[in-house]
Amino acid sequence: MQPMFLNHVAPRLETGDGVIRTAAVHQLGLGESRAAALLGAMMDRSADPLVGTTVKDAIVTARVRASGSAERVEREFAATVAEIERRWRPYVFGRNEVTLPMAVGEMLRERRATLATAESCTGGLLGSLIVGVAGSSDYYRGGWITYDNAMKQSCLDVPEAMLAAHGAVSEEVALAMAEGARRRSGASVGAAITGIAGPGGATPGKPVGTVFIAVALGRNDAVESQVRRFEFSGERDVIRDRAAKAALQMTRFALLGVGANVPLLWEAPAPTRQRVPVR
Amino acid sequence: MQPMFLNHVAPRLETGDGVIRTAAVHQLGLGESRAAALLGAMMDRSADPLVGTTVKDAIVTARVRASGSAERVEREFAATVAEIERRWRPYVFGRNEVTLPMAVGEMLRERRATLATAESCTGGLLGSLIVGVAGSSDYYRGGWITYDNAMKQSCLDVPEAMLAAHGAVSEEVALAMAEGARRRSGASVGAAITGIAGPGGATPGKPVGTVFIAVALGRNDAVESQVRRFEFSGERDVIRDRAAKAALQMTRFALLGVGANVPLLWEAPAPTRQRVPVR
Repeated sequence: MQPMFLNHVAPRLETGDGVIRTAAVHQLGLGESRAAALLGAMMDRSADPLVGTTVKDAIVTARVRASGSAERVEREFAATVAEIERRWRPYVFGRNEVTLPMAVGEMLRERRATLATAESCTGGLLGSLIVGVAGSSDYYRGGWITYDNAMKQSCLDVPEAMLAAHGAVSEEVALAMAEGARRRSGASVGAAITGIAGPGGATPGKPVGTVFIAVALGRNDAVESQVRRFEFSGERDVIRDRAAKAALQMTRFALLGVGANVPLLWEAPAPTRQRVPVR
Repeated sequence: MQPMFLNHVAPRLETGDGVIRTAAVHQLGLGESRAAALLGAMMDRSADPLVGTTVKDAIVTARVRASGSAERVEREFAATVAEIERRWRPYVFGRNEVTLPMAVGEMLRERRATLATAESCTGGLLGSLIVGVAGSSDYYRGGWITYDNAMKQSCLDVPEAMLAAHGAVSEEVALAMAEGARRRSGASVGAAITGIAGPGGATPGKPVGTVFIAVALGRNDAVESQVRRFEFSGERDVIRDRAAKAALQMTRFALLGVGANVPLLWEAPAPTRQRVPVR
């Protein structure tokens, strides 16, 4: 092995007195082709630093690699990473080992905000992602898995008449769940997911993959709520995974003060609303 | 490729007029070495059908392979699979594609029973595993993620004095959470998890990995409760995964009427109790 390495591998790794630096910039909610288009010539194969994108479980990552003299790499590497983050704003949530739940947690912690969740079709997956981060008890109050309608009423104060009029999978119920979770837990932010993960459950106008996600955020004496309608495709587990991640990204957006006018991949064409009711 | 297959691969697959049958038998809660010891000579390398075990994410699987004449395989294969299931009873939950949440769901459905969950350190993972099974709305009512103590009190009626006296990670609180979830949701079975997933949170006598799991089952006018203390090892995610699976297996045991005297791997040496209070 030693001659193989010394004669064939080492020369290719040789950078003289130079250095190699790599970074990964992660975003959710911009499709891969749109994300690549925004980077434009930065992704040319001859560009330096070299930039490429990968996708895994809906997270789109830009991978940056710079090599050469320490001074040049230092300057150009940082500038390239910053430029990617600028062009992908506000979708970028972190670099390298930072996950989406970690990023949301860090934002909550910085703002001394707290979060509660209300889930139907994801059945606790959102809570589980949040609690997967060590130290999440600093900002996560807890949540409700209101899988049946009686629990939506008794635990989150979703009115029976609303369920009857709009169905459990609706903009109205998602908003009521988010506000109910926030109010009942005493958290500053409530996030809610209600949808149809399939394979059964589709209704006219609401195919499998239809998911409503709402975020209610208390600010001073008002509650600002956002709700979006998504149509995810794929198997039950994929729909649930995407829904939980979209809820985390919507929570980030709400904390950043980014309005519903910033589109997210998978959003259904139906109009989305932003409401600022007085509490 | 065709000559390669015909000349080299096909002859090795040749079984004459014979057949090959394979099956996987899954169990949780018997350690791999104990499970192998129970199979004894069945696992000899010269045995026919051939039996081996594998472990993945704590699920221990016996893999059975029989080949030969159709008549002989038919007879011996079924007998071998049945014998493994007998020796591993009551830990075996299913064959082949059957997962633990599917097995629990099927038992609930057959018994027209319903389930609610209450989770602390697993943060919704148990609910998420249950809801991962299509059709789970037939038997799953929903659950609570009572990550902070105020929610354990307000949502599940865990007495403040109990939390103060025993701590949130205790036998008493696990039992109160399971009974609270059952009663509040109107389900026939409540399952609860409270523990320390780490890396922080350890207290004297309760190291990281200490988890209490309780199952409350309404039968006629009484509630039968079981609680066990576990000490899981590994990273945060491993502890959470094992806790959710142990809760599913304890739910199976409760539905089967198997008492707390059947040990589960990872159980802490401290005595476990079985209580049958009158409601």
